[in-house]
Amino acid sequence: MTRPAVVLLSGGLDSATVVAIARAAGFTVHALSFRYGQRHGIELERAAAVASALQAHEHRIVDVDLRAFGGSALTADIAVPKGRSAAEMAHDIPITYVPARNTIFLAFALAWAEVLGSSDIFIGVNALDYSGYPDCRPEFIAAFETMARLATKAGVAGAEPLHIHAPLLAMSKAEIIRAGLALGVDYGLTSSCYDPGPNGEPCGACDSCLLRARGFAAAGVPDPLTARFAPGCSGPVPSASASRG
Amino acid sequence: MTRPAVVLLSGGLDSATVVAIARAAGFTVHALSFRYGQRHGIELERAAAVASALQAHEHRIVDVDLRAFGGSALTADIAVPKGRSAAEMAHDIPITYVPARNTIFLAFALAWAEVLGSSDIFIGVNALDYSGYPDCRPEFIAAFETMARLATKAGVAGAEPLHIHAPLLAMSKAEIIRAGLALGVDYGLTSSCYDPGPNGEPCGACDSCLLRARGFAAAGVPDPLTARFAPGCSGPVPSASASRG
Repeated sequence: MTRPAVVLLSGGLDSATVVAIARAAGFTVHALSFRYGQRHGIELERAAAVASALQAHEHRIVDVDLRAFGGSALTADIAVPKGRSAAEMAHDIPITYVPARNTIFLAFALAWAEVLGSSDIFIGVNALDYSGYPDCRPEFIAAFETMARLATKAGVAGAEPLHIHAPLLAMSKAEIIRAGLALGVDYGLTSSCYDPGPNGEPCGACDSCLLRARGFAAAGVPDPLTARFAPGCSGPVPSASASRG
Repeated sequence: MTRPAVVLLSGGLDSATVVAIARAAGFTVHALSFRYGQRHGIELERAAAVASALQAHEHRIVDVDLRAFGGSALTADIAVPKGRSAAEMAHDIPITYVPARNTIFLAFALAWAEVLGSSDIFIGVNALDYSGYPDCRPEFIAAFETMARLATKAGVAGAEPLHIHAPLLAMSKAEIIRAGLALGVDYGLTSSCYDPGPNGEPCGACDSCLLRARGFAAAGVPDPLTARFAPGCSGPVPSASASRG
C-alpha cells in the first residue's frame, strides 16, 4: 500500500525532480502548485505537464494573492536582475525573494496533508545553489517541521509525526539533474526562468537560468530546453524534434 | 515614534481585544483579515468596523481559498455542532477546526510584517477557553516564532528578532472581556458566532457563542450584542438604542 504525500510543485527543475523522488520512495503524489501573481505564470502550465508525465495522483493549483503585500520582483512591477555572478547570488538576498513564500506554501501543504491524513510533505529547496533565500536553509526546514508537528490534530493525537522531506537540500544542481535523469524526469517539460518570454522561452540571464545552465554544464548533459528554444527566438522551434530524428 | 505591528483580526471578541492591546502598547496597527470561504462571512464586516473604531492604521483582507482542501464545518457543507458542554470542548477537536488555519494566517502575517519592516505580529489565540484547537496552544505559538525568525530576510540579517505576541494566551474569557472594556472595546461591533443568521444574529448554541456567553456571565457584564439582537429575532432590533435612552 502506498502512502500519500503532498509535493510542492512549481514546474521548475528542482520540484520536478522531487516528484520523481517521492514516487520512487513509494509515495502517492498529491502535487500542489500556487497561482500567486507570479510574472512567470508559464510555470503553472509546466507544473501540470510535469505532474502528468510523472504520474502524480492529482495536481491542485491554489490561488494565493501574494501581490497583496508587494515587495518582490517576482510579484510586483520590479525588474528581475540579470547576469549576476555566483558570488553575488551567494551573498545577497535578491529582489526576486518573495516574503515568507515557502512558509506560506508549506502552510498550505500542511493543511492539505492534514485533510488527506498524510504525514509527509516534500519540498524542493536547495541550500547549495539556492540564490540566497532565507527560507531555503536547512535550519528553516527543521524549524517548520517542529512547528508543524504542533499545529495539527495529528500532533495532538500522537499519530505518525509529520515529516518535511527536502531531499535536494544538500545536493548540487548537477547532482539534482543526474538524479532526476536517472528517475526519468523530462527536463524539457520544466521551466526555471524568472522572466520568460511570451511562449515560455528562458531569458538565459536571470539567477535561475544561470544556475540551471551551470548545473547542466557541470552534469555534462545538454539541457533539453535548449533544443526547444533556439537562442533569441520568440517561440519553440517548430522543427526541433524533427531535426533530431 | 510608534512601531508597526501586524494584527490578525477576525472580527471576533478576542482579536478585537488584541487590536486594543497592541494600540495600548504603542504599536501602529496593520490589521489583517482573510476571506477564506468561511460560512460566517459577516465577521469580515465586523472586522472592518472594529478596525475603524479602534483606529487601526490600515486593514487588509486577503483572499485565501481554504475550501480547496475541505475538511472543516467552517468552510465545507458540514453542520456546525451546537450545545456542547465545556468538558466536550476541552477534550475533542471539533469539526469546526480548520486544518492548519493559524499556520496559514500567521504565514501571511509574516509576509506582510517583512514587507512593512515590522518585527511584531499579534494573534488572539487563547489556551484556556479555546475550543480544543491544536494551533491555539502556547507550544505551537512558540514553535512558529522560532520558525519565523529563520524564515525571513531579517532572520538572516540579524535584525530585531520577530515576536509573535499572543497576549490572550493565559487569560480566561472573562479576563479578556474586562481587559477589552478597560481599553474601550465596543463588543457590540464584534461577531463570535460560527453559524450566524442572515443579519449576523448569533445562533447562541455553537461553541463560540457558548464560550462568549459564559465569558460575559463570569465577567459580570451584559453582552452588548444581546441588546442588538433580541432572542430568536431575524435582525437587529431597530429601537435597541432608543429603548436604552
